[in-house]
Amino acid sequence: MPDVSPTRWHLAHTTWFFETFLLKSTPGYQVFHEDFEYLFNSYYNTVGEQFPRHRRGQISRPGLPETLDYRRHVDQHMMELFSAGEFDGRGHVIELGLHHEQQHQELILTDIKHVLSRNPLLPAYQTPTPMASGEGGRLEWTSVDEQLVQAGHADATFCFDNERPRHKTYLQAHELAHRCVTNGEYLQFVNDGGYRRPELWLSLGWAQVQQERWTSPLYWLRRDDQWHEFSLAGLHALEPNLPVCHLSYFEADAYARWAGCRLPTEFEWETHAAALSMEGNFADRLTARRLPIHPRGAGGEIPSKPAAMFGDVWEWTSSPYTAYPGYQPASGALGEYNGKFMCNQFVLRGGSCATSSDHIRPTYRNFFPPEARWQFTGFRLAR
Amino acid sequence: MPDVSPTRWHLAHTTWFFETFLLKSTPGYQVFHEDFEYLFNSYYNTVGEQFPRHRRGQISRPGLPETLDYRRHVDQHMMELFSAGEFDGRGHVIELGLHHEQQHQELILTDIKHVLSRNPLLPAYQTPTPMASGEGGRLEWTSVDEQLVQAGHADATFCFDNERPRHKTYLQAHELAHRCVTNGEYLQFVNDGGYRRPELWLSLGWAQVQQERWTSPLYWLRRDDQWHEFSLAGLHALEPNLPVCHLSYFEADAYARWAGCRLPTEFEWETHAAALSMEGNFADRLTARRLPIHPRGAGGEIPSKPAAMFGDVWEWTSSPYTAYPGYQPASGALGEYNGKFMCNQFVLRGGSCATSSDHIRPTYRNFFPPEARWQFTGFRLAR
Amino acid sequence: MPDVSPTRWHLAHTTWFFETFLLKSTPGYQVFHEDFEYLFNSYYNTVGEQFPRHRRGQISRPGLPETLDYRRHVDQHMMELFSAGEFDGRGHVIELGLHHEQQHQELILTDIKHVLSRNPLLPAYQTPTPMASGEGGRLEWTSVDEQLVQAGHADATFCFDNERPRHKTYLQAHELAHRCVTNGEYLQFVNDGGYRRPELWLSLGWAQVQQERWTSPLYWLRRDDQWHEFSLAGLHALEPNLPVCHLSYFEADAYARWAGCRLPTEFEWETHAAALSMEGNFADRLTARRLPIHPRGAGGEIPSKPAAMFGDVWEWTSSPYTAYPGYQPASGALGEYNGKFMCNQFVLRGGSCATSSDHIRPTYRNFFPPEARWQFTGFRLAR
Amino acid sequence: MPDVSPTRWHLAHTTWFFETFLLKSTPGYQVFHEDFEYLFNSYYNTVGEQFPRHRRGQISRPGLPETLDYRRHVDQHMMELFSAGEFDGRGHVIELGLHHEQQHQELILTDIKHVLSRNPLLPAYQTPTPMASGEGGRLEWTSVDEQLVQAGHADATFCFDNERPRHKTYLQAHELAHRCVTNGEYLQFVNDGGYRRPELWLSLGWAQVQQERWTSPLYWLRRDDQWHEFSLAGLHALEPNLPVCHLSYFEADAYARWAGCRLPTEFEWETHAAALSMEGNFADRLTARRLPIHPRGAGGEIPSKPAAMFGDVWEWTSSPYTAYPGYQPASGALGEYNGKFMCNQFVLRGGSCATSSDHIRPTYRNFFPPEARWQFTGFRLAR
Repeated sequence: MPDVSPTRWHLAHTTWFFETFLLKSTPGYQVFHEDFEYLFNSYYNTVGEQFPRHRRGQISRPGLPETLDYRRHVDQHMMELFSAGEFDGRGHVIELGLHHEQQHQELILTDIKHVLSRNPLLPAYQTPTPMASGEGGRLEWTSVDEQLVQAGHADATFCFDNERPRHKTYLQAHELAHRCVTNGEYLQFVNDGGYRRPELWLSLGWAQVQQERWTSPLYWLRRDDQWHEFSLAGLHALEPNLPVCHLSYFEADAYARWAGCRLPTEFEWETHAAALSMEGNFADRLTARRLPIHPRGAGGEIPSKPAAMFGDVWEWTSSPYTAYPGYQPASGALGEYNGKFMCNQFVLRGGSCATSSDHIRPTYRNFFPPEARWQFTGFRLAR
Repeated sequence: MPDVSPTRWHLAHTTWFFETFLLKSTPGYQVFHEDFEYLFNSYYNTVGEQFPRHRRGQISRPGLPETLDYRRHVDQHMMELFSAGEFDGRGHVIELGLHHEQQHQELILTDIKHVLSRNPLLPAYQTPTPMASGEGGRLEWTSVDEQLVQAGHADATFCFDNERPRHKTYLQAHELAHRCVTNGEYLQFVNDGGYRRPELWLSLGWAQVQQERWTSPLYWLRRDDQWHEFSLAGLHALEPNLPVCHLSYFEADAYARWAGCRLPTEFEWETHAAALSMEGNFADRLTARRLPIHPRGAGGEIPSKPAAMFGDVWEWTSSPYTAYPGYQPASGALGEYNGKFMCNQFVLRGGSCATSSDHIRPTYRNFFPPEARWQFTGFRLAR
Repeated sequence: MPDVSPTRWHLAHTTWFFETFLLKSTPGYQVFHEDFEYLFNSYYNTVGEQFPRHRRGQISRPGLPETLDYRRHVDQHMMELFSAGEFDGRGHVIELGLHHEQQHQELILTDIKHVLSRNPLLPAYQTPTPMASGEGGRLEWTSVDEQLVQAGHADATFCFDNERPRHKTYLQAHELAHRCVTNGEYLQFVNDGGYRRPELWLSLGWAQVQQERWTSPLYWLRRDDQWHEFSLAGLHALEPNLPVCHLSYFEADAYARWAGCRLPTEFEWETHAAALSMEGNFADRLTARRLPIHPRGAGGEIPSKPAAMFGDVWEWTSSPYTAYPGYQPASGALGEYNGKFMCNQFVLRGGSCATSSDHIRPTYRNFFPPEARWQFTGFRLAR
Repeated sequence: MPDVSPTRWHLAHTTWFFETFLLKSTPGYQVFHEDFEYLFNSYYNTVGEQFPRHRRGQISRPGLPETLDYRRHVDQHMMELFSAGEFDGRGHVIELGLHHEQQHQELILTDIKHVLSRNPLLPAYQTPTPMASGEGGRLEWTSVDEQLVQAGHADATFCFDNERPRHKTYLQAHELAHRCVTNGEYLQFVNDGGYRRPELWLSLGWAQVQQERWTSPLYWLRRDDQWHEFSLAGLHALEPNLPVCHLSYFEADAYARWAGCRLPTEFEWETHAAALSMEGNFADRLTARRLPIHPRGAGGEIPSKPAAMFGDVWEWTSSPYTAYPGYQPASGALGEYNGKFMCNQFVLRGGSCATSSDHIRPTYRNFFPPEARWQFTGFRLAR
């Protein structure tokens, strides 16, 4: 799976970012190893050649000890940078490096999960923890009238360049579901022949279903004539009230069509989310619970308004990933961070159970190709 | 090239459309040949299985005589249908079949051009005709203020379902170039190393350039140290003042980035075009001139306002091909015509020199994947 | 199917051979068309670049009329060469060109058959003719003691270079079946799960069966729960007493293993064949009967000794295609005819129903990769 | 590289062999882990499904500690088997398991070498040791007259089934070189445009050279305008007097053609080797010297007769890997060990610097596809 990288690579790459974009321009700094510029460059053409992505898993050196040495070396120099206060004008780059590392922390988890899932032993990464039982409950809808709204990041606090500039856009009248689609609901789609009915799918989606022989979301497995789900805690019976997770844009779109609804646009999503507090099931808040669950209100109830928009699962929107009007990428290599990927991808919002709580924003735009399933992705309906 | 089909297939398929969607439901009608339902079904899953697209060129039967018999048979039955006036309620389907045939007439030309271009003999499809010399002339811009506009088809006349419903959308302040980018202008981009500078390209575009070893638009060739262009009239020296043609969305986007501009959105394009008359260089109006040229004003001058928005070349926009708010595909098989392709494609506007003049509209949305180059595609700048 | 070429290409190529290897070195000769050297060069690196094999089917020019003009032009010049008697020392090359054309005459038939077989209409190339009913009859065996024998072409008459030099080789004691395996016998293998039992197959063969989903020889089809066979006369019920045909070395080897036997070596085959007259079902002798049949003896009986070793089907041997001891290819381009293919192919003997009767010899070595099925290939058993 | 497996896999697989073919049929034996039958089955269809070869490198569990536990568990039970003397009739299987493990010990080294070679850091597996300088010296030839000889394993001592039965074969008069081709000699071929001259290559070999862009043997690298070679001791300057190593059958065949010679047949090789003692540079005899060198005679001289036929490099022969007359594979799964691979591979003889000295025999037949380069392969000339 060419999108998956070893943990060792993620550790080296996030450190490479600080070395490359901050330390290298610091007078007197000596690179840790001259070959690491090439080995751990993910996709920055401006920096130089990149070791091919699909071969990252074939590199056994540097091993873990040397990789940790690399990290310590760079961390130490960064600390010196902080002490000397010598980073004026590059504060944004440091902040970017930290957010970048948070993104890779999430990828470490998704990649480990994928590697373990491809092992017939289906090993568990961590011990199982008791899960909230919860109920899906009847789907409730919140209406919004048509109106002109603002979208995009509003102030000078940190954001990625693709969240700017703030701009006007026209929202159509619509309704948004109060929660994400659950395993139980998605199972109805499966049992109604969802994966065998081409009329429910985009053309590219139906081609993908046939070519890859999809019959369910990525980590669902049939065992003893029952559906199970593979998680970082190993294989367990499918929990009907969890948000369905690890499915592609194609599957979310097909379910929505089957249900007579649609996916929300990113601007519909943002308008609702901006009104909420950013509470949810994140990587740090809920200890070791790498499974998405519905947060409950204070009295244990499932909120009826759109809630749980943050954490749990990244929510697919119907919006292709494009540039906001007036978008300007940063100059130099850091301009390669987001803008050059604005093609053939769809926007996801809200963060997941593997995202850090201080990483997400209502305006945060994640993006993946429509066939990607190895991220913690789910969706909610709109109509 | 799996996107290209033999002329014989196009002839049979356009006739198949009438047989399948009109004649088959007519009492007493006998299909011409029972295997043609499968052989000439392009992609209508609702109708049944489809003979694989990439194998269309390997079928030597039915030969041309039998294919023409098939067409005569269906035309005859359609005429009977008209005489009997027995098509109430299906008038839209007949209209759709006629517009469908116009689309395939254009594809016949693009496909013939591609097949001949892959032959080392570089055969000409037709005799060359003298071309308007023209000058590119200085690029002029028309400004538009930000405003809420309506987009989409307005009345009950024919359109494809993807042009509806008419809806409000917010236009940002912008400027649109008065003409398309020319060969001469694009050549400057080529000579400035455009195809060797990754920072100008979307990530997928740069990957495409490297994998396919692109160094120019599709039909440009180096001969005797000069650029030539292959056309349906054979190989000829590159004409600097013609609109650059047969290039991908990736190349249009890279040129725009190089020029410090961008591609227009489809709604910007539509707003300007709706104000113009639909005059231009089409397949029928200008005899046998399959090469795009700039139409001139009455005094031979090149118009300065946005003009030539119709005909010549389909113009890439920056808009991914998506559903308009409230979009509903037709029910049944005909709902497979447009909607299921709304993924990983970009919208083109305006028609080309191979389009029939009565086929195009300001709201007409053509769509192709970003790497496609075998259609008559060009672009104009916005900023 | 990259091994298959259009008939037009075969016609042009066989003419190209005479132009390239004879006429071009004739003073004053003007080539018919300067691009044909490239277009119709099959694989002679010494001559120059070759138009890629898998694209031969995509070239619509030169069309048939121009191709026939090419042939007439070259034939005319060859006649002049004969009249002038100006071919001393090149008599062998002319003879080679004629045998080369005979090889392509056989390929024209196999390639047409393949193209038509891939058309859902399953068109017939010719009208069916009544076939000899025949009986398979009990398999009889001829014994040969171990001995030192001579193999390879013995005299100065024409042969291909790979049939020389004549050399000694040691024959083990063995038995050879008197006829080829029939459809009826092969069907028993099929019905006994032959295509589902990996232990019967070479490793590469089992991989091929799985990857290509083979369940029978190439032109067998199930219709109405019965086996049929596609031939140049269209689809007909499987005839149990015909030699099984259009199967790979892998399938012949698996059947032999299933039957507790083996394939003969090419030297075992040659030793038996050298004792027989070259009678059999060839392309020219039996009018329009492109289906292999057993020739009968004068009284209508099936001969009991090894017979029908010539014609009908090319017989797979267990011998990889290698160089005879002391093998020397011709110098120059014509040395590329046979020697450079001596890798990963197996030898077949005896000619087929599509071979000309004056083309074959007991020492003639045909060769194909073990997965090839589109030639008229069958086999007989040894033990 | 799908042919390469992690060391952890080799360790588990060699242990799996003993568990599967010996312990499982022992009353009361409990398998170590029920999933290991699938995970570590290399290619024994008779035993069951096999985890795909190309995915072996993606399995992180069982980790090294658990794999070593597996080995200890099986070794312990095997020791109990020995103590109890309970292996009558299966002594051959135990012997086979030991020789099988020796084969995988060699593969462990070749696979580690390959993985490290693909790392831009070019890590060394072991510290360099001083190498014998040696000189190639003038090539000397030993003549043999034509004669009938016996080939194959002669007595009841251990051998693989493909070395039987012993049989008569006819040897042509020939000469064999006294040593393998050296780096220095091969370099002359390279510098003479060997990799750019199609007339020197088999057709499949030339296709391979072009497709893979070969310009030298596998582990040769250009650095500072000089040739270097990568070994298990890291990168070092090319040593002209070492036997050229890590090249394909295609390259050996092309060099031989360039030199006006050929490769020996396996029977020519065996006839010469059977007369020699099995001395040479093996994995065990020469400490940590994983680089092939010429063994010297007692006085330090390079022997002039064919010598060094054992150890150093496996020597390509011109013989395709086929069955000896009368060959019978073992019954059951162990019959899958050798026989089913007798297709599209060539025989190599003599063992290499990574082979155990007690593993090799004059009749031992190794085999690889003609494009394989990652084994310790070289060659000597015949004529």
